[in-house]
Formats: sequence, C-alpha cells, structure tokens
Amino acid sequence: MNDLSHYLIPRGFKFAATKAGVKTSGKPDFAVIVADAPACAAAEFTSNRVQAAPLIVDKENLHATGGRVRVVAVNAGNANCAAGEAGIRAARATCAGAAKVFGCSEREVFPSSTGIIGVPLPAEKLTNAMPELKELLSDDARSFDEAAHAILTTDTVKKTAFARIEVASGGAAQEIRVAAFGKGSGMIHPQLAAHATMLIYVMTDAAIEPDALRGFLRSAVEVSFNRISVDGDTSTNDTVLLLASGASGVKIDAGDAAFAEALTEVCTSMARQVVGDGEGLSHVVELRIEGAASDADALRVAKAIAHSPLVKTAWAGCDPNWGRLAAAIGYSGAQIDPAHFDIRFGDLPICRDGGRAAEFDEAAAHTYISQREFSISIDLHQGAGKCAFWTTDLTQEYIHINADYST
Amino acid sequence: MNDLSHYLIPRGFKFAATKAGVKTSGKPDFAVIVADAPACAAAEFTSNRVQAAPLIVDKENLHATGGRVRVVAVNAGNANCAAGEAGIRAARATCAGAAKVFGCSEREVFPSSTGIIGVPLPAEKLTNAMPELKELLSDDARSFDEAAHAILTTDTVKKTAFARIEVASGGAAQEIRVAAFGKGSGMIHPQLAAHATMLIYVMTDAAIEPDALRGFLRSAVEVSFNRISVDGDTSTNDTVLLLASGASGVKIDAGDAAFAEALTEVCTSMARQVVGDGEGLSHVVELRIEGAASDADALRVAKAIAHSPLVKTAWAGCDPNWGRLAAAIGYSGAQIDPAHFDIRFGDLPICRDGGRAAEFDEAAAHTYISQREFSISIDLHQGAGKCAFWTTDLTQEYIHINADYST
Repeated sequence: MNDLSHYLIPRGFKFAATKAGVKTSGKPDFAVIVADAPACAAAEFTSNRVQAAPLIVDKENLHATGGRVRVVAVNAGNANCAAGEAGIRAARATCAGAAKVFGCSEREVFPSSTGIIGVPLPAEKLTNAMPELKELLSDDARSFDEAAHAILTTDTVKKTAFARIEVASGGAAQEIRVAAFGKGSGMIHPQLAAHATMLIYVMTDAAIEPDALRGFLRSAVEVSFNRISVDGDTSTNDTVLLLASGASGVKIDAGDAAFAEALTEVCTSMARQVVGDGEGLSHVVELRIEGAASDADALRVAKAIAHSPLVKTAWAGCDPNWGRLAAAIGYSGAQIDPAHFDIRFGDLPICRDGGRAAEFDEAAAHTYISQREFSISIDLHQGAGKCAFWTTDLTQEYIHINADYST
Repeated sequence: MNDLSHYLIPRGFKFAATKAGVKTSGKPDFAVIVADAPACAAAEFTSNRVQAAPLIVDKENLHATGGRVRVVAVNAGNANCAAGEAGIRAARATCAGAAKVFGCSEREVFPSSTGIIGVPLPAEKLTNAMPELKELLSDDARSFDEAAHAILTTDTVKKTAFARIEVASGGAAQEIRVAAFGKGSGMIHPQLAAHATMLIYVMTDAAIEPDALRGFLRSAVEVSFNRISVDGDTSTNDTVLLLASGASGVKIDAGDAAFAEALTEVCTSMARQVVGDGEGLSHVVELRIEGAASDADALRVAKAIAHSPLVKTAWAGCDPNWGRLAAAIGYSGAQIDPAHFDIRFGDLPICRDGGRAAEFDEAAAHTYISQREFSISIDLHQGAGKCAFWTTDLTQEYIHINADYST
C-alpha cells in the first residue's frame, strides 16, 4: 500500500484487523470497517436458498435500519453456515459485542463470515478481540491493507480496487472516492469442509441515499460479479456490500452516470481479480458473446461454456477443440441457428456458419490459447444481445485442491 | 457372448461388423443391424440444438416412413457433425448405399455416427464396406457381439443388456425378447476433436406399432438415460433407437406393463453401464432424492449435485464434505426449507434439519464413500416428489483424458 492508495481511500471510514483465533493457522482472521457515522448501505447476497447465518442477520438489520451500517465485522476461518439456531445466535452475539465496543445499535452492525461450514461460529473469540480492534482503528492505507489481508482464506493474492471522480459541486471541483477490498478464489480449504465464498466491501465517501445506492449496486453487480464463474458452484455466503459515508460532502443522485461508471469499474476490477485467482487455474478466459436474440440469451451461452467441464479441460490442455464450444452453444438453451454461428479465438477465425472456418489454422489456434489470458468471441447472428463473461479452465490442480482429503 | 445370450437375442434381426477404415486405429468401426422385414421404430435424440447430420436425416426418414426401419448403419471414428451440407450429403449417401446393398428404400435406413466432429464423414468408406457386411450378416450371438464392439470409441467395456418376458398368447405361453447394445462413456478421444456420444440400440421381437413404441421408449428413457450424468455436457449425437420386429408373433399394445417393465430394465441397465464406464471415474454414485415438492424438483436437486465440480471432487477424495451437497441443494432452484432437509450416506445420518446430524461420524462417512459405488439419500420434506439418478466423481484422470493435447 503506497501513498497513492492512501489518497484513494474514501473518507469517513476506519479499518483494523487482528488475530481472533478462529483460523486454526493462527493467522489474522478478523477485520472491521467502522464508519465515523452511520453510512448508507446497500447489499447483494447469494441466490443460494441455503444461506449462512450472517446473511440472514444482515438482511434483518438492513431492513430494521432502512439501510444504515456503522460497523462491518468480517471473520475468516468459519463460515457460520448450516449451524442452525446456534449460528444465528452467534451472528447476533457478534452484533451485540460490536455495538457495545464501537458505540452503535446492534442493528447497525453487518457481520460476515467465511471458512468451514457446519460448525457454529465461536462468537466470543470475535467479541473478545473487539477492544483491541477499537484501539487499532485508523483511516490510513496500512489499516485498509491489513483488513484486506485478514479476510483472505485460500486466496493467493490480496484483492483491492480504487476509483476517483472529479465533480463540479458548488462551483468548485470536488472529488469522490470509491474503494473496495474483498476475497474469493472459488477455492476450498483443503481437508476442511470449507466453502468457496466471495466477500466484497465497496466504500465511497459520496453522499448517496440507500434507495439510490441499491440501484447503483444492482446495476454494477449485474455486469461484474454476475459475469464471472470459476466452477459454477454458488456459495452460501456470497456478499457484496456498498457503503456511502457522505464524508466527501458531495451528494450523488440516483442514476448519476459518472458514479455508476466508477462503481462498475471498481466492481469489474474486483470480479476479474477473483477469477484471476481461481483455484488451480492455468488460463483466464474472456468470453464475448454477440448477435444473441437477447442479452439473457447471450448470458445463457456464456454460462453454458463457462460451466462445461469438456470446454474447460480443453482450455487446460491448450486444445483448440471448438467442437466442444459448438456443443455447449447448442445445449445452452439460447435461440441459435446451428448453420449460422461463428467462433473466433482472439482475431483467428475458427468456426463459420456452424462448421470449421476455411482459414482454420490449428497450430495458430493452439498457440493463441496457450497464453495465460485469452479471448473467445462468438457471434450467433440472431439479434443485438451480447455480454462479456470471465471464467477459468479446469485443471488437475483444481482436482488436487478440492479432492485431497486427509483421514 | 455365450449360449444364454444367443437365447436372449430378439428374433427378426441380423448383425454384422467390419473395419471400414474410418477409425485411424484400423480397428472395427462399422456395424449394421438389418431387420428381416421393415421393423417398427421409435427414437429419442439429443436435445442439443446443434445436431449431427445423421440425426437430421434419421428424423426425416422416420417421418417419411411413419416409423419403419430396415437397416441401422453405425460408424465410429467420425461423428459427421458440424460439417455443414457436406455432412448431410454424407449421411444420405450412406442411406443410398445401404438401400442398394440390402434391398430396401433409402428412407428405411437409420445412419448413426460417433467420433471426431467438424470433418465430413467419408461415406464412400461405409458404402464400400457394405457388400462385405451383407455377406457377414447373421442372427447369432457372435455377430451381435461384434456389432456391439465395433461401435465403441473410448469405452473401456462392451455394453449390452437383455430381458425376456413370458406372455400367455393364444392359450399357450410365448416369449418375447428385448436386447440392447450401445456405447458411451462421456469420454473424449484424446488429441482429436471428438465428442462424447451415447448411442443405444434396443431391439425386441414383439409386434408393436410405432405410436405405442414411441410411448414405451419415452417412458423408459425418462427414468434411465435421462437420469444419468458424467460431466453434464450434452452431446450433439446422442441417440436411442427402439426397433420391434414382430418376429415373436406376440402383439403388445400401448401401456402393457410387463413390456414397459422389461424395456425399462434394459434401458436402466444400459444407462448404468454408460455411467459405470464414465471417463476417469473412481466412484459411481447413486442419488436418491425424496420428499421434493415435485418429481421435477427432485430432478433439479439431483442434477445440481451431479453437475457440481465441488461435490464431484469431494467424492474423488472420499471426503464426506456434506456442506458442498447442502450448497448444491440450495442453488438447485428446487423448493426447499434450509432448516428442514436431511442427508444420508447409505444408512449413515449426515445432515438433519439443514445442519450436521448429532450422530455424524466423519470416519464412518469417509469409509462409506471410499467404496467404488455408494448411495446418497436426500429428503427435502416438501412433498412426494422423488427420483433416482446416477453419476460419477470428477478425477484428475478425467482432466488428463480431456485436457491432454499433442501439438
């Protein structure tokens, strides 16, 4: 974290992290974001019908406060999921502890958890660590960085993103900042019943009301986190939280294009960082679907490809096996004409009108997809629907990571 | 193939196989089933919108004849898919050649292909081999066996199934026979752009009209081939064909329970043989979903589990990680109550009311799922919907098979 990063951290928030003893490794496992005053908040949660206890409590709290958060309390090492009523009690105990230490209402606390599931969270370890966190609270870049580190599980790299916007306000140029940290690699902690989870915290010092904030977040999530897949498994804990402190003094109204763009940029960067840290990957693949009957159809095709073990293993082998792509396009459920779709690897023509392109050059195609990152474009010639999507290959290392079990 | 098998082969059909030179290995790659007289026929094809040329021609032919087939011509080594108009011409050329050699109408020929895609089928290799096949035609067990072998691609074992029914007809006990051979292992031919394909040919010597035959086949397929998954990829060539020669002299009407049961038994056996030969598998898993709001919901849960890389890799590692099952149940789209579903491994309680069962014994669970074949039962407590489903784990060997590419 350097001076530039510090310069980019939204005003009105403080950060701290410590070792609460939840991770068996003894590494930092507990971080808080504390807003100087209740921040406006919007959140998106996993669509999984099995939801972890903190998500249930978060929804209750956001509803009760009308979208206000003072303290975000994130632990790694235990997902507090599938733990029944004990899990709910543990999440509420975390809220109660934070409310007491940081001086706010229990409802203004937003707990998050990631780690093993099926075991109730030892909330007392979190509450015991809170006084220390209060002492450590700081708005400097180092604290932001430590919080971003403490919530990692099997991620191999820290994930942060920043954006700034200059706005004319009251006749003078003013600035608002957007920043995020988060975790997620689709990875499973070996030997433990841990589950892949993506946790993303986005902060801004713009002043934005909760209703408007929800609209901004939903739009940004739709084209960022909803456009990535590592293994197609949807976690029970996935959470994206957006907080607006208002500390910049700049008010942003619903639909503001500049803010929407900055938020989308930060979310897309975070999404691509999550995919880029996907478990065991050797390739990151950008899918560009166009000419679909609708955007929804474009997404169907992208997801069918991103979830196909045959396609993903071909990528792992740098195998330009476009037949597997054609098959996935065919079973995607999207409206297609089998005799009228095209596939390109980068700029290389691979398939035209549903058959092998006349210019198909297997060696060139193999060389192209031997790169760590590459792009595949598909034109369905059905309409104006399109999407961009990011995914990974499926490697022996993925199996190694997820299958190894020590008795 | 022994005498018992011969005794089980439906009357009214002859078989032959040879090396037509389509497989680059030079192994047998072309088989025919020839009915003594036009047999009544019903077929089910892949739901993939990208369909191989023979499937398009098969549908035209079955429509033109009202469901009559004299000759089934199956080649391995080339799937005749994504080859444009040249593929259609090749399939029609196969029909024309067979009609000439075996003395029937072109429309009474049912071509099938499996192997590499994107390359037009060399139909002349098939037509050149037909006179030899005509010489070899026989109704004996050895010919049946050779045909069953010739259509295999990367299958590691031959797949056949037999059933017999005794029926009272005209005051005397008579017998009808049902037999099937087929191929499919979800496997991809290394280094070639070949696609997983399941081809199944079921024959009976009962006399059954095409309309009734379609009803029998649809019902049997629904609880057999539509209840298996190796990797979730739906091939462009999947075909199940049911032929009724009538040579037993026993007429079967629509809805006959004994015939339906025999056909379902044969189809289920074939389906389980296909799963049991799944690519690189180390475990075959039976899923028993019950208590779902509907049968469709039960199937949603089974498919979500069967297609989850995280669940399948846990099985590969003999890891009793039920949290991954809970997550898949949650995102399946089925109606569930997160606080009210149970999971058992065989008879072992694993999860109760959405949380870890009090009797959960990790060592016992690990030992149980270390078996090559095991069963997982899930009760959703939502209604009377249920299904049985068979699938495999996801292993490093699967990746090895599908990812290795030689430049």
